[in-house]
Amino acid sequence: MSGWLAVAGLGPGNDALVTPEVQAALAAATDVVGYTPYVARVAPRPGLALHPSDNRVELERATHALTMAAAGQGVVVVSSGDPGVFAMASALFEALEAGPAEWRDLDIRILPGITAMLAAAARLGAPLGHDFCAINLSDNLKPWDVIAHRLRMAARGGFAMAFYNPRSKSRPHQFAEALDILRAECGNDRLISFARNVSKPDERLETVTLGEATPEMADMRTVVIVGNAETRRVGRFVYTPRSAGGAA
Amino acid sequence: MSGWLAVAGLGPGNDALVTPEVQAALAAATDVVGYTPYVARVAPRPGLALHPSDNRVELERATHALTMAAAGQGVVVVSSGDPGVFAMASALFEALEAGPAEWRDLDIRILPGITAMLAAAARLGAPLGHDFCAINLSDNLKPWDVIAHRLRMAARGGFAMAFYNPRSKSRPHQFAEALDILRAECGNDRLISFARNVSKPDERLETVTLGEATPEMADMRTVVIVGNAETRRVGRFVYTPRSAGGAA
Repeated sequence: MSGWLAVAGLGPGNDALVTPEVQAALAAATDVVGYTPYVARVAPRPGLALHPSDNRVELERATHALTMAAAGQGVVVVSSGDPGVFAMASALFEALEAGPAEWRDLDIRILPGITAMLAAAARLGAPLGHDFCAINLSDNLKPWDVIAHRLRMAARGGFAMAFYNPRSKSRPHQFAEALDILRAECGNDRLISFARNVSKPDERLETVTLGEATPEMADMRTVVIVGNAETRRVGRFVYTPRSAGGAA
Repeated sequence: MSGWLAVAGLGPGNDALVTPEVQAALAAATDVVGYTPYVARVAPRPGLALHPSDNRVELERATHALTMAAAGQGVVVVSSGDPGVFAMASALFEALEAGPAEWRDLDIRILPGITAMLAAAARLGAPLGHDFCAINLSDNLKPWDVIAHRLRMAARGGFAMAFYNPRSKSRPHQFAEALDILRAECGNDRLISFARNVSKPDERLETVTLGEATPEMADMRTVVIVGNAETRRVGRFVYTPRSAGGAA
């Protein structure tokens, strides 16, 4: 039997946002690998082995998955959201690059999913309806100076912005610094939205101005979206018009 | 009967990428509105009226959809990709803002879909696996100077980039100018990928360096992805590592 590996995006949490392509891969798999809460979303069945693992072991998990696929298994690496956006796809290719050359001939596919910022944007209205940036605010894998620089460049380019992993207990001051940078660049009136646990039963949405925003409005389960200069409210929605007159 | 309106993302073209949430909305609708090729993807059935319309009439289409929902119909506005990314959601809210105040109380939902850049990224590997920008290169609704400025800010921020609507017959020189800006900012060795008709039978993927890229590699059915300084090939894939050492 010839092995294969799919890195599949489960979307933000609600099964109504899982594509048929991902459902079919899960139905065909012999092994499912992933962070424990994502593997818990896959229904057990005879012939399917579930391999949950901890957070922050992405490379080991990817290597395990590649090893099983090379041995002839049908392996799905489950990822939240879209695997290509701050999730498991890049880790898989890092492991592929570091592994034996014959792994590069494996049947490997990345199956897209609904990423958190687009699920959040849909629930809010259309705050990312014009040019935008996606930025991971975690400094696990990059220096904070790089993040601060990117916030300034995104603001000066007039982009809307979506932030993943905005705030954790290990670095509580950085999101406060991010808000300070944004206020200095964009002014106090710019809209900022906090979307927590989007598509789940305890979803929470909140939109305020940068002047009103506090660091406590975000945690690691929150996606933060900052509008551009044209972003506005209409009724209960927040949206960014399609046209732009100026650069920022 | 109480009306409702959903703006639904059909994904890049393959029905295996349409979410169950969108399928359920289409099954419940009395009316489907949209650009002709997208409406053509919806199966006719008794009780469902299809309202195809031309490109570039987004506001009229949105107003029509809101009018029908206000009259008690169940209306789905179909959009390619994700409705919130250079698609119908912002046009819907523009029409809502311009329309009668009572429209703001309507049951309106945006249903996310797989947007073209993330479908393209998945087929290529993981070129958007780190911080990135999404930019619409069409100058229909913004001046070219704004676009050129955003390309420079994105490059100086060290972002990967995805471009929608890179090139049309009415403005063939602009994408050449975009490539010149990118070569000046990022150097000739930066990887650039052209993904045409992603997920469709005639899908075409091509990755070259900026030095090798020519304007003719893109048309309006192409999503263009430019890597950051770390973006590399492994086997037949292109990916961007999760870590970053410097700003650009």
